[in-house]
Amino acid sequence: MTDPFFPTRTDAVRRHDPAVRGFASDNYAGVHPEILAALAVANGGHQVAYGEDDYTGHLQEVFRRHFGDRAQAFPVFNGTGANVVALQALLPRWGAVVAAESAHINVDECGAPEKIAGLKLLTVPTPDGKLTPELIDRQAWGWGDEHRAQPLAVSITQTTELGTCYTAEEIRAICDHAHERGMLVHVDGSRLANAAATLGLPLRAFTTDAGVDVLSFGGTKNGLLLGEAVVVLNPERVHDLKYLRKMSMQLASKMRFLSVQFEALLSGDLWLRNAAHANAMARRLEAAVREVEGVEVVRPVQANAVFALLPREVSERLQKRYRFYFWDEHTGEVRWMAAFDTTEADIDAFAAAIVEEMGRQ
Amino acid sequence: MTDPFFPTRTDAVRRHDPAVRGFASDNYAGVHPEILAALAVANGGHQVAYGEDDYTGHLQEVFRRHFGDRAQAFPVFNGTGANVVALQALLPRWGAVVAAESAHINVDECGAPEKIAGLKLLTVPTPDGKLTPELIDRQAWGWGDEHRAQPLAVSITQTTELGTCYTAEEIRAICDHAHERGMLVHVDGSRLANAAATLGLPLRAFTTDAGVDVLSFGGTKNGLLLGEAVVVLNPERVHDLKYLRKMSMQLASKMRFLSVQFEALLSGDLWLRNAAHANAMARRLEAAVREVEGVEVVRPVQANAVFALLPREVSERLQKRYRFYFWDEHTGEVRWMAAFDTTEADIDAFAAAIVEEMGRQ
Amino acid sequence: MTDPFFPTRTDAVRRHDPAVRGFASDNYAGVHPEILAALAVANGGHQVAYGEDDYTGHLQEVFRRHFGDRAQAFPVFNGTGANVVALQALLPRWGAVVAAESAHINVDECGAPEKIAGLKLLTVPTPDGKLTPELIDRQAWGWGDEHRAQPLAVSITQTTELGTCYTAEEIRAICDHAHERGMLVHVDGSRLANAAATLGLPLRAFTTDAGVDVLSFGGTKNGLLLGEAVVVLNPERVHDLKYLRKMSMQLASKMRFLSVQFEALLSGDLWLRNAAHANAMARRLEAAVREVEGVEVVRPVQANAVFALLPREVSERLQKRYRFYFWDEHTGEVRWMAAFDTTEADIDAFAAAIVEEMGRQ
Amino acid sequence: MTDPFFPTRTDAVRRHDPAVRGFASDNYAGVHPEILAALAVANGGHQVAYGEDDYTGHLQEVFRRHFGDRAQAFPVFNGTGANVVALQALLPRWGAVVAAESAHINVDECGAPEKIAGLKLLTVPTPDGKLTPELIDRQAWGWGDEHRAQPLAVSITQTTELGTCYTAEEIRAICDHAHERGMLVHVDGSRLANAAATLGLPLRAFTTDAGVDVLSFGGTKNGLLLGEAVVVLNPERVHDLKYLRKMSMQLASKMRFLSVQFEALLSGDLWLRNAAHANAMARRLEAAVREVEGVEVVRPVQANAVFALLPREVSERLQKRYRFYFWDEHTGEVRWMAAFDTTEADIDAFAAAIVEEMGRQ
Repeated sequence: MTDPFFPTRTDAVRRHDPAVRGFASDNYAGVHPEILAALAVANGGHQVAYGEDDYTGHLQEVFRRHFGDRAQAFPVFNGTGANVVALQALLPRWGAVVAAESAHINVDECGAPEKIAGLKLLTVPTPDGKLTPELIDRQAWGWGDEHRAQPLAVSITQTTELGTCYTAEEIRAICDHAHERGMLVHVDGSRLANAAATLGLPLRAFTTDAGVDVLSFGGTKNGLLLGEAVVVLNPERVHDLKYLRKMSMQLASKMRFLSVQFEALLSGDLWLRNAAHANAMARRLEAAVREVEGVEVVRPVQANAVFALLPREVSERLQKRYRFYFWDEHTGEVRWMAAFDTTEADIDAFAAAIVEEMGRQ
Repeated sequence: MTDPFFPTRTDAVRRHDPAVRGFASDNYAGVHPEILAALAVANGGHQVAYGEDDYTGHLQEVFRRHFGDRAQAFPVFNGTGANVVALQALLPRWGAVVAAESAHINVDECGAPEKIAGLKLLTVPTPDGKLTPELIDRQAWGWGDEHRAQPLAVSITQTTELGTCYTAEEIRAICDHAHERGMLVHVDGSRLANAAATLGLPLRAFTTDAGVDVLSFGGTKNGLLLGEAVVVLNPERVHDLKYLRKMSMQLASKMRFLSVQFEALLSGDLWLRNAAHANAMARRLEAAVREVEGVEVVRPVQANAVFALLPREVSERLQKRYRFYFWDEHTGEVRWMAAFDTTEADIDAFAAAIVEEMGRQ
Repeated sequence: MTDPFFPTRTDAVRRHDPAVRGFASDNYAGVHPEILAALAVANGGHQVAYGEDDYTGHLQEVFRRHFGDRAQAFPVFNGTGANVVALQALLPRWGAVVAAESAHINVDECGAPEKIAGLKLLTVPTPDGKLTPELIDRQAWGWGDEHRAQPLAVSITQTTELGTCYTAEEIRAICDHAHERGMLVHVDGSRLANAAATLGLPLRAFTTDAGVDVLSFGGTKNGLLLGEAVVVLNPERVHDLKYLRKMSMQLASKMRFLSVQFEALLSGDLWLRNAAHANAMARRLEAAVREVEGVEVVRPVQANAVFALLPREVSERLQKRYRFYFWDEHTGEVRWMAAFDTTEADIDAFAAAIVEEMGRQ
Repeated sequence: MTDPFFPTRTDAVRRHDPAVRGFASDNYAGVHPEILAALAVANGGHQVAYGEDDYTGHLQEVFRRHFGDRAQAFPVFNGTGANVVALQALLPRWGAVVAAESAHINVDECGAPEKIAGLKLLTVPTPDGKLTPELIDRQAWGWGDEHRAQPLAVSITQTTELGTCYTAEEIRAICDHAHERGMLVHVDGSRLANAAATLGLPLRAFTTDAGVDVLSFGGTKNGLLLGEAVVVLNPERVHDLKYLRKMSMQLASKMRFLSVQFEALLSGDLWLRNAAHANAMARRLEAAVREVEGVEVVRPVQANAVFALLPREVSERLQKRYRFYFWDEHTGEVRWMAAFDTTEADIDAFAAAIVEEMGRQ
């Protein structure tokens, strides 16, 4: 058998141009090379399957450094899986989750929370993707009334689906408010690293220390091949994740390869480098397009997304050159996302293309 | 950014001895180096997420070469996911699946079929893990009676959980029998490659051509980092997998890295090399222990597993030297599995250890 | 055994004052005497259980007279059961239902649609509890995108939870709109009889003839002891109700007693008498309170409910004399409902009490 | 409005011959006249819906007299509903129930436990429908292993589906055994009254006092129109039934009519009279057919069922005269059931018919 560090052959054929990058999503990016290298580190020999390997064992220590001594990490495959596993741990069968109308769990998971776990979502429209105690109260009522699915959890997304970022204080206020009402708090942190970079805070400052009970920590958009982790921050209230993960079809047999990626990401500063870079590229794009007349940046750029309004036909011409999505077909709002591998040159070329296409009108 | 083919650093630390191999499970093995190399091939640049990338596009062709022109492949994360997604596609909400009592879906998935998809399993004890038309008929009845969950699918495992292998004719008989009764057939093929190696037949000979409707094709045990594929063989009857996969939390965002692994596995002969090797190692072990008085091989060795009876205290001493499991705590039956990376030297050393421990009684 | 028509003893003791009536809900009323008599008609001797009895057999004819020759009726226990059974028949596992935010299925069933059947509800705020093609379009989009639970059904309530009534033309417009988009239409008709009385139309005119595919027909609020019926109006598209009913725990063993109630209700004009009377009592109340300064009727009275705004302390004093609910704790809006057994004297006394309590301010 | 005690008209038409009785099932019988009278007692006026009425309030006292001071009763619609609600209260999402293979929850509920509540059933073949500690242990293992749905409850049926009756000591042994292993115990008591009559014991002697945690108490087969009750016996461990009942679509709006039936049944001795009579009729039938050569009673007659083997063609001729079922199509075993309204004359005529048809061979 060859050295896995230097594999010399494969029947797979390169089918894409690695120079091409777009602005559609941070999950269009590939794997960070340091992560790829980590896979090889963990390879070879036999390791116990399903999480009893040496890498997963060590991983607990890695997560505790970031999230405190009580944190427990359960790697899973994807964000939908992380969210559905985590929320099940917060709720009895008759429970409901208060969430923003724009939450990924509500709009982008094919109903998995409802269909797989019977979770009722009680949603609230928000101006910026962020819940507040006041907004939560629009759905947080009716405890004790068996006609109402009982609102027993709150789920927020950090950073939000609209590119905004909660402050640590805002999260603490939500957690306090929820806990006073007997509700637990979940954070969908598929872009949690981006929030840390924006806030300039360690991860625990706006999660564990703010009172969050359980977390979906996103690895994929932060440079992993695949992998998210359900992180229990309040083990007194959040239990039995191992059963929920397995029955929710999110338990990897060769777990070491999920765990070692997280080790590579989190034991040094790769997680923060990747996130800070993506955020910076979004800000660079924002700065560039703010100079362009006719293009309006319509939401605060607090992470790695820029939401903009520009003439629809300009967007459509631009889409022939760079992949990105309309966020709102009705208004014509578009979303541009930067990833860990987006370069300054990518941004500058894209900004130039925007200027060019705006000029063609 | 460094060349992903030659990553030069990572914060991950090797924590295990890659020379150590055991006999507990074929998923204790790591990733085949050619698969690891394939990951690097697909890396770099941006590719559309969720399966619209160039690798997943090409993958359909790869699967059709093995399973015929109508085959459609849907990569998923793990075997439980593959089975639950596939079975949902065969059944209305009120449907039930006839399966062997020993089936993985019945005993090893924390109830995921029932809990995630509401599938009722109608199980039958079998002598060797294999269903037959006669055994199926013990549960296949009661159509039209709404008090009975309607038996509308049959699920078999190839090779079985007991290390046995259906012949193509046996599968055809099951499919004919099921179809005549309006039932569809699923194959849990987490070790399908091992069956092809045992039978000396192309994959389609005992799947598509035998009448199988949908398949869980196993990649992980065959050398992938992770990845299985739901393969639709009868698209007239099996639909809408894309929705079932997403809502079942089995849709990878960076799908290219699942697909390119399958390409590396299936476009050449890696799948067969790996499986044939594992099978040969099991046979080598069988041959060795048949020489050992007091050790009885209790099931036909038709794939990569050897089931044996030997004194319990011998097994327990052996377990301190090599990892493996008791299959049946009651009888003391043990299971020894060979993987793609098990070497002849591993087998010989293990056989010597068995002889040694038997001699200590 | 005594004659069941004239039972002469029971160990049950009357514990309530049958003269007391309130305005909280039409299901606070008891059983209409003609229905009670029907139970005795069906009693005695043995009848096949689970719906193969003579009364259920005949019932199909009764329902076909009201809903057309293709109608198929499946009696169930309650409204939640009827709705969940019916909606499951319209949707694949990945389907979603477009409904008004105020729909009973969304707010008053403890999440049963999500929890029992995995139905995703896509809700729309409405001014008056009524959907329109335009409002439906706010959620009816995204077909083919597996990230979105597929909007494949529309559910409307007739009469609505807000006391309003769709015209036949409005329902037809919704059905046409839905069908053009490949969606099916369900009507939650827990007060369908009230709609017929309001519209002055036969039941089929605004259901079958308007294009509705399946119906929850309400018996309980119309005078039954208990019982609703799922009525299939489009048997080409809506199938297999018998399995869905049984697995949803809505199949009565002594079905004859559900069916004979419906026969008593629907074979003559009892259904219409009861509904028309309740509606008239609501209108009588509306007319009375419109005369009272400081009490505002805030929604059109098109069925048996009156929604009003009046000083909160007046409402609270009134509640000590008559049972009714705040509809909206925030605004202080109250709901007053009339039932089949509400008398003119009840209304007049209640109106006098309102005048009296308003005068005490 | 007429006096509901003496309704004088209905549009319902008698469609059956109340003199005809068969031996197919105890739910082919109608409503006991004292129960029908109770419905009228509770009728008239307005009572709070959904269980806050005076009858349901009083009902708790009635049940406590039978089941002890901690008992809490939750009326539901049917047996499937009672079982599924009760079992959900015993299990976390990842839980499994050990039950006899012949249990109604396994074979006769269209998979409702799996489909509605995601309950995994771990079944054991039994000789006589009864579990024992030893039989339970065949499935009660694997705690802590997330690959196995966790066996956390045992469900037994009293009297069993095979007409046998557990002694109080047998149930106590099962409860002790289960509790020692951290499992809770459910009794499907759709024929619990028959057990009391057989055992000559008060209900609590073989339920509460034997350690049972929750109970499905059967009313329908004991003479009600419809109605079962989930009875919590161990409120420290079994919680929140009110939410489970509502979300499981088993909450009646006009609850007073369920509750008053139970009051009529249980506040005097009607429950015992009905059950003892049915049992006596089964024994009378057993005694009669034991005299008939060629007819073999194949199971102990410990309740209201007689299982017999006789020539298939004799059974088929008999079925043209009296309705009953083959229990086992394969062996030709038939089941004959007596109900509360089966008369001595019915039994004697049926026994004579058996003799007659046996003589025709």
